[in-house]
Amino acid sequence: MDADIITIGDEILIGQIVDTNSAWIAQKLNAEGINIRQISSISDHPEHIIAALQESGEKSSITLITGGLGPTRDDRTKTALCTYFKTKLIENSEVLEHITQLLTPRGISINSLNREQALVPEKATVLHNTLGTAPGLWFSEKGKIYVFLPGVPFEMKNLIDNEVIPRVRKVFSTPVILHRTILTQGLAESTLAEKIESWEDSLPESLKLAYLPSPQNVRLRLTARGENEEILVQLLEQKIKALNELIAENIFGYDEDTMAGNVGNILYSNGLTLSVAESCTGGNIAHFLTLNPGSSSYFKGGIVAYSNEVKVKLLKVDPHLIAENGAVSQEVAEAMAIGARQAMNTDYSIATTGIAGPDGGTIEKPVGTIWIAIAGPSTLISKRFTFANNRERTIIRSTQTALNLLRLELLKLTIKGKEK
Amino acid sequence: MDADIITIGDEILIGQIVDTNSAWIAQKLNAEGINIRQISSISDHPEHIIAALQESGEKSSITLITGGLGPTRDDRTKTALCTYFKTKLIENSEVLEHITQLLTPRGISINSLNREQALVPEKATVLHNTLGTAPGLWFSEKGKIYVFLPGVPFEMKNLIDNEVIPRVRKVFSTPVILHRTILTQGLAESTLAEKIESWEDSLPESLKLAYLPSPQNVRLRLTARGENEEILVQLLEQKIKALNELIAENIFGYDEDTMAGNVGNILYSNGLTLSVAESCTGGNIAHFLTLNPGSSSYFKGGIVAYSNEVKVKLLKVDPHLIAENGAVSQEVAEAMAIGARQAMNTDYSIATTGIAGPDGGTIEKPVGTIWIAIAGPSTLISKRFTFANNRERTIIRSTQTALNLLRLELLKLTIKGKEK
Repeated sequence: MDADIITIGDEILIGQIVDTNSAWIAQKLNAEGINIRQISSISDHPEHIIAALQESGEKSSITLITGGLGPTRDDRTKTALCTYFKTKLIENSEVLEHITQLLTPRGISINSLNREQALVPEKATVLHNTLGTAPGLWFSEKGKIYVFLPGVPFEMKNLIDNEVIPRVRKVFSTPVILHRTILTQGLAESTLAEKIESWEDSLPESLKLAYLPSPQNVRLRLTARGENEEILVQLLEQKIKALNELIAENIFGYDEDTMAGNVGNILYSNGLTLSVAESCTGGNIAHFLTLNPGSSSYFKGGIVAYSNEVKVKLLKVDPHLIAENGAVSQEVAEAMAIGARQAMNTDYSIATTGIAGPDGGTIEKPVGTIWIAIAGPSTLISKRFTFANNRERTIIRSTQTALNLLRLELLKLTIKGKEK
Repeated sequence: MDADIITIGDEILIGQIVDTNSAWIAQKLNAEGINIRQISSISDHPEHIIAALQESGEKSSITLITGGLGPTRDDRTKTALCTYFKTKLIENSEVLEHITQLLTPRGISINSLNREQALVPEKATVLHNTLGTAPGLWFSEKGKIYVFLPGVPFEMKNLIDNEVIPRVRKVFSTPVILHRTILTQGLAESTLAEKIESWEDSLPESLKLAYLPSPQNVRLRLTARGENEEILVQLLEQKIKALNELIAENIFGYDEDTMAGNVGNILYSNGLTLSVAESCTGGNIAHFLTLNPGSSSYFKGGIVAYSNEVKVKLLKVDPHLIAENGAVSQEVAEAMAIGARQAMNTDYSIATTGIAGPDGGTIEKPVGTIWIAIAGPSTLISKRFTFANNRERTIIRSTQTALNLLRLELLKLTIKGKEK
């Protein structure tokens, strides 16, 4: 079962707004087992609207169109669809009554523009828009469904949930579709692909895999499609378990999880506290941690030690260590982590020092060289990384890598706890 | 001149990610006087890719395709376009060399997947992707242009700016179109619109205004279109000057400027240093400052004082002040700013303390209440703000507002300096 989503209007075509409606609708239809064939944004020229309806009608079972139903004169959708469906506009008394009821309390009297909104194509079933003046329209034509909705997000969402989805369920019987996203860190896309090649080859036809890389991490999305939900759930669980046996250290979460959120959860559930000492990451680790509501219960604070003076004064790094090894060194990273833990009196600490670039690199320590250290009650580890020559990406990757190092340390603790 | 933008891949079709690439590309092409006819997202099925190329080639002069060029096996774009353009894949030695140079320093050895990325269609002109492994591809076929770009946003943006736009300018002669973007901070879109209404009415037909709101600020884009570049430049300058007379305090920069970058420039050119003390912004001010290359010359460091213990210990905030006024108060914000300036020995400091939410609000201090303080050699100012009930937005708006407060303070200094 395929569907198309079409948005009418110029705001998206000139890049003034980003189309978030379509992603929301796609998720909703997917959850009903409906596959989205194509998402398009088009202008409100009648010929363009008619051509888009024509093409979609040939290729998909459902066409969902948003926008182009407002009260102003740039909306030419209704005329175009009368041409396409060979019908005419008639005044709908229920819609007119609803518009009057909506506008009168706001002190707005019905003008000709509002009155035009009560005109609906004779062939259409009206979808009652409780939250706005433009009604939704439902056409059933030669076994295909066309649904027109206003573009205002909260009106559109309300109509999808309460009018469109229940009708779609009645008309079509749809298969089961499930998605799981596995979040990985620390492997480039190509290395990851090589490591899990045999696992990927073992996937049955009912499971599809997609790689979704971003500057932060590589996500793997598994899509299961079939008739029996229980079987699909088991299949997904089984394959995710097998994947964990291959790359356990690199999987930090699933679906909507974030690295900082998951590290926070482990700290919280173990009653542990954290501080950070950041040089090259410049406050970004603290920022990622504090994006999570409730982070104040485990994150006590951080020192952004951008200058050596601050490293010495607030983190008590021995100035000789800096003079002998340079600020970007294992010795300084470890001293920073120890210093943060003591200064802020926490169980664990993370420290970063590196060359984010574009300047400051040498042959021995090129731009992208980062030392990360983790200090804990009975732990002091440090590791060197080399990231790409791009300041913003290096900051993000250093942040995620540092949080993952702490996560792996904390997991050892949990395993030890369980062994006792 | 019409263009189509097509995105290949399932992530958008299943609603997992919102298509922000297309809006960015649309803005860029608009700036060149190119009209966007249609924006589409399609699956990576070869038949669908070929059908989309066919349709776009019939209706537009330029087709810009992103996505579907990664190293893993879910990318079937290159095969599809070989079919469409009747060509074959050949190994490109320059691309292979570039991939090797990118991956070797990261300790990644070239595998068969990376090697496949060096295969390019024989008919294509390779667009060198300095930031990633997948090259861009440019086809010129029967007077139509087709451009394929990787979907990773920073790689795609770099290729558009440095490879695509210059070539498009050579191939098509377009009218003179100039854009200036005016960056404002501190006024909601509707308030701003009201304040500048008469100015907006005064704009001649050759100038078009667009409001581009974002969580960080409201940008105003002026587009000038005509035959004579000199006249358009003068017109833009004159209108921007007039706008400055209306909302000088709210204009913090132009075009690609950032608030943190501009604050940094003022500090740098005056030989001044800065430190920060962050509670509710959780390190984000330090992060925004350190995103700028060279920030180490004026930004010495920060203390993320998330717990009261850190406020007292490292920022020397009197615990009685916290007990009497609460951590979110004018007194504590000012004490934090003074403490940061002293602890890190800087000319200026910024402090934030607030309730980012979703919990912790009271009737007197609802979620979104933020105190910001600025301390300097002969300055101590503080101000209360109430932002929306959304954690991430409140963090971003507090960050930008705090930096703008410092900017306005620093500008007074510059004016005083000039008066002497």
